[in-house]
Amino acid sequence: MATITLGRYLWERIHEIGVDTIFGVPGDFNLQLLDYVFEVKGLNWVGNQNELNAAYAADGYARVKEVPGAFVTTHGVGELSALNGVAGALSERVKLIHVVGQTTRPMQDNHLMIHHSIGDKPDHQLYNKTSKHLRAAAAELWDVKTAPKEIDRVIRECFIHSSPVYIFVPLDMVGEEVPAALLETPIDTSMPVDTKAQDAAVNAIKEALENAKRPSILVDAFVQRFSVVSETKALVDRLGVPVFTTNSGKSIIDETHPQYVGVYNGQISSPRVAQACESSDLVLILGYMPADTNSGGFSRKLSEYQCIAINPHDVNVKGKAYPDTFIKPLIAQLAAVLNERASNEAQTPKLPPPFRYKDHAATNITQSWIWPRFAEYFRGGDVVIGETGTTNFGLCDIKFPANIQYVNQIYYGSIGWATGALLGVEVARAEVQAKQNQSPGRTILITGDGSLALTMQEIGTVVKQKLKRPIIFIINNNGYTIERMIWGARQTYNDIVQTDYSALLPLFKHPDPASSFHRATTKMELDEILKKVELTDPTQLQIVELIVDQLDTPWRLGAQLAVRGEVTQKYLADEGFVDSIGGWGLEGSSLSVGPKWA
Amino acid sequence: MATITLGRYLWERIHEIGVDTIFGVPGDFNLQLLDYVFEVKGLNWVGNQNELNAAYAADGYARVKEVPGAFVTTHGVGELSALNGVAGALSERVKLIHVVGQTTRPMQDNHLMIHHSIGDKPDHQLYNKTSKHLRAAAAELWDVKTAPKEIDRVIRECFIHSSPVYIFVPLDMVGEEVPAALLETPIDTSMPVDTKAQDAAVNAIKEALENAKRPSILVDAFVQRFSVVSETKALVDRLGVPVFTTNSGKSIIDETHPQYVGVYNGQISSPRVAQACESSDLVLILGYMPADTNSGGFSRKLSEYQCIAINPHDVNVKGKAYPDTFIKPLIAQLAAVLNERASNEAQTPKLPPPFRYKDHAATNITQSWIWPRFAEYFRGGDVVIGETGTTNFGLCDIKFPANIQYVNQIYYGSIGWATGALLGVEVARAEVQAKQNQSPGRTILITGDGSLALTMQEIGTVVKQKLKRPIIFIINNNGYTIERMIWGARQTYNDIVQTDYSALLPLFKHPDPASSFHRATTKMELDEILKKVELTDPTQLQIVELIVDQLDTPWRLGAQLAVRGEVTQKYLADEGFVDSIGGWGLEGSSLSVGPKWA
Repeated sequence: MATITLGRYLWERIHEIGVDTIFGVPGDFNLQLLDYVFEVKGLNWVGNQNELNAAYAADGYARVKEVPGAFVTTHGVGELSALNGVAGALSERVKLIHVVGQTTRPMQDNHLMIHHSIGDKPDHQLYNKTSKHLRAAAAELWDVKTAPKEIDRVIRECFIHSSPVYIFVPLDMVGEEVPAALLETPIDTSMPVDTKAQDAAVNAIKEALENAKRPSILVDAFVQRFSVVSETKALVDRLGVPVFTTNSGKSIIDETHPQYVGVYNGQISSPRVAQACESSDLVLILGYMPADTNSGGFSRKLSEYQCIAINPHDVNVKGKAYPDTFIKPLIAQLAAVLNERASNEAQTPKLPPPFRYKDHAATNITQSWIWPRFAEYFRGGDVVIGETGTTNFGLCDIKFPANIQYVNQIYYGSIGWATGALLGVEVARAEVQAKQNQSPGRTILITGDGSLALTMQEIGTVVKQKLKRPIIFIINNNGYTIERMIWGARQTYNDIVQTDYSALLPLFKHPDPASSFHRATTKMELDEILKKVELTDPTQLQIVELIVDQLDTPWRLGAQLAVRGEVTQKYLADEGFVDSIGGWGLEGSSLSVGPKWA
Repeated sequence: MATITLGRYLWERIHEIGVDTIFGVPGDFNLQLLDYVFEVKGLNWVGNQNELNAAYAADGYARVKEVPGAFVTTHGVGELSALNGVAGALSERVKLIHVVGQTTRPMQDNHLMIHHSIGDKPDHQLYNKTSKHLRAAAAELWDVKTAPKEIDRVIRECFIHSSPVYIFVPLDMVGEEVPAALLETPIDTSMPVDTKAQDAAVNAIKEALENAKRPSILVDAFVQRFSVVSETKALVDRLGVPVFTTNSGKSIIDETHPQYVGVYNGQISSPRVAQACESSDLVLILGYMPADTNSGGFSRKLSEYQCIAINPHDVNVKGKAYPDTFIKPLIAQLAAVLNERASNEAQTPKLPPPFRYKDHAATNITQSWIWPRFAEYFRGGDVVIGETGTTNFGLCDIKFPANIQYVNQIYYGSIGWATGALLGVEVARAEVQAKQNQSPGRTILITGDGSLALTMQEIGTVVKQKLKRPIIFIINNNGYTIERMIWGARQTYNDIVQTDYSALLPLFKHPDPASSFHRATTKMELDEILKKVELTDPTQLQIVELIVDQLDTPWRLGAQLAVRGEVTQKYLADEGFVDSIGGWGLEGSSLSVGPKWA
């Protein structure tokens, strides 16, 4: 019987499901395992600068390639360093496979005080236990006879839950042999279908829609995470009703689509968008993520009886639960069986034209100006990565061109994530492009000085990998502006390290740092930079630093945040917000805000 | 009754035990808590570039100041990012207080989907549960009536276990009032003494020593962690017998002390040191940490019946256990009651003179040359921080001048730790120096290119804080040399991002980058650099890059590592090691190695 090593088996399986790059950091207990990555044809290794960044890169990879992101760490020090990145993937339902190289089984059996351990008679499984709450499933490989089945099982779980899974491999197992024939049966990554349960849900949805006068669709993030985008688009087209997205779900439906209305974020929506959504008598919510960050701090005015929520693994139709469904086959069936509605034009509400801010004449770069300016700069085919901070509030306020993918971590909101994610996104896009000979879109990260500091070294990996199309915009507003808006506007704890971003590319030996770094203080300077060929059609990493006032912020942020600090209150008054607002969804939701018309 | 806020109470208590600086990263759920740091006279805030670095900085602070290091993170994203740093402190028994600003109690009670959470009805205590295995104690503040007592309790536990503790503070509690009078009773941080148990142990130790002919002392790291250094020195002087240290315990006893022999690391010791220690008929081991990294991969030839082990909370005398003792009062009592032995000269073994390596005539910088060269460069009063990698193997092979503190994380071995620790060490030293008007010693970090990458941004905080005496030596050997020695010498996974370290100081706006960055490729260049006033008496951060061949390594590393890769075997043969050695303490310990004499 032909055999292969368990290490080889593991990577073949991961490659089989569409993963072409393994991220990670080498360590004493995974080196031999890494050798087998190089044995798998078409599988690449991209080492990261640290483990948290590796998790973030794998997360970004998964989001754009719609297969799991896979990364490797070493026992203890490595796996724990990555844990926050894994937790973020669980929160946001991103598929990750975290492979951990553990100490050998004899070391574990004998409770040896091997480096990276804790205590006198160390339990080497302590770190595995630590991550228990932060994953959907784990394979704890110990017996080579059952190991292949365990690997297959958790890879399937990764798809079904669209969440991180762990595979723990003791170092002495990677070279053990398993039957090669096991690879002949592919892993089943399809969603299970309980036909009876699904039919019940579909019939209830169909009936509710037939009885509705002004139905609409609200598309949320889990549609993207559970790979239901094409089915969702088909459903939107089929129904022909107005369509909204949440913050996290923005860009899943092209914003040029004739049925598209806008981003519905409770009362923190652009003028009249909330009214448009809430006046619908039936909102079909797809891939529901009802978090504060997606609902204007829980300020949606939608009753349960006015909604159908299609969740990953169940449905709620106007208050009645339909369990045991799976979002992907369910939406596919809906797109096939639901009846078309009356024409879009009759239903899709007309919104007022874009407004101009009071500060529109300022020559310096302002938050009110920059986001519409980015909208002009974006081009179909671009992937736009928004970092937590002022960026995601700004991006949610503009209309994207068609065929943009907006990648964000709005709910988990771990600053620093986006820089690592940029690497993974661009690696994944390069793979897809190489195979499909696609026309190259740009990969545009918009981040802030505060967020960049946490994971800045991963820019080095972007340079090392010679990735061609990434552009990093750094909004330098002298510290944690989003935190200043929440509390402590002038407190020194919201200051950060002064950083000269022009040194970043030289630090990582970028081949052409002088022409690849750009800095703008005025709108005119930024306009000139955005016209350069490096920014329209980049061939290597570009960095653009934008100098923005430290208390300037998108109106959505000011409106969403609790009005507690004097500076924040003053800011809101200066900007002309009509009313005071509640904080973090706790102090009631009788809100009425929006920017004053200039 | 006069009251103060709970937030104020917390920081007053932490300041009371000797903490003058709080590290951390602000976040939505700790901002109000941070305000109270500024209300406490003499308490400072030093913000970090990310949370893992904050934990490392607090760890370094604790190690040199011998009080807990304290740092603050925010719910979920922050606390998880720091977890590996906390685990390292637990492994190495470093006192840390990790304060986490949690979501409000109403948010938790209502299981709100507040950003940073996981799941539909999120359990906000999930992250607290995750860190459960990685701390000695935790205060989960929920009721303001019991909160002060809980804070006091875990601060005491932090001292007793010399380990990390957590304090979780829901955001809505920080402004609640507690009686100010509670501050009038200081927290008891002294070790408990069970007089009967301690007397039994002391008597057994005394008897064993009286019956021994050639006793010796082996000083290990926990002596430093449990703040027993002065008592240990008194005991060493009193007994007058030969004294050894472990790798981790190196420098606790001045290496110029007449009784000092060397670093005992099992069979991976300098010539004749192992024989000297093992020929003792009674080894009194103080603060025992019997890990692979401290014992030459478990290659010590000492039987239980030949040893007295004084552990943090118990004693073992020649195989017999004496529980319920505490290391600090116990060693203090031993230093007071044990009898002096015969004079040092009769007992302390004579070791051969330092050897010269075969490559001593090379003009480039070699690992065999650089460590003795550092020994010449070090000066009493310096603190030397050794990063995991070739550095700690090299440093353990040289003799330090008197009055050096060697700070290392040899057992937990999380690369990147040392850069964060440098910040904490230097902040702590600046505080002590300001109070005691001490003469300034330098704070010297020796790290490698591989390790530096993980946490390099913390150099920015060192610049921001205008710290005066730190010097960073970067051994640039083109990747993970220690991993190349273990496995995959030429594999690309052991390569890292090419980095131009001369850009680091400009990146963080160092005031004088040109004269503060130095690069040496040859021994002569390094000699010249080390003579510069910037290196002898620095007044601001200095960086020295040393170019070293990627497969050059200290002999101790080559000897300790498993001999598995061809390159490694060839290296060992080239260097003239006498015999092959076991790997990681698993393959037997009949070792006989050491460098060939030139």
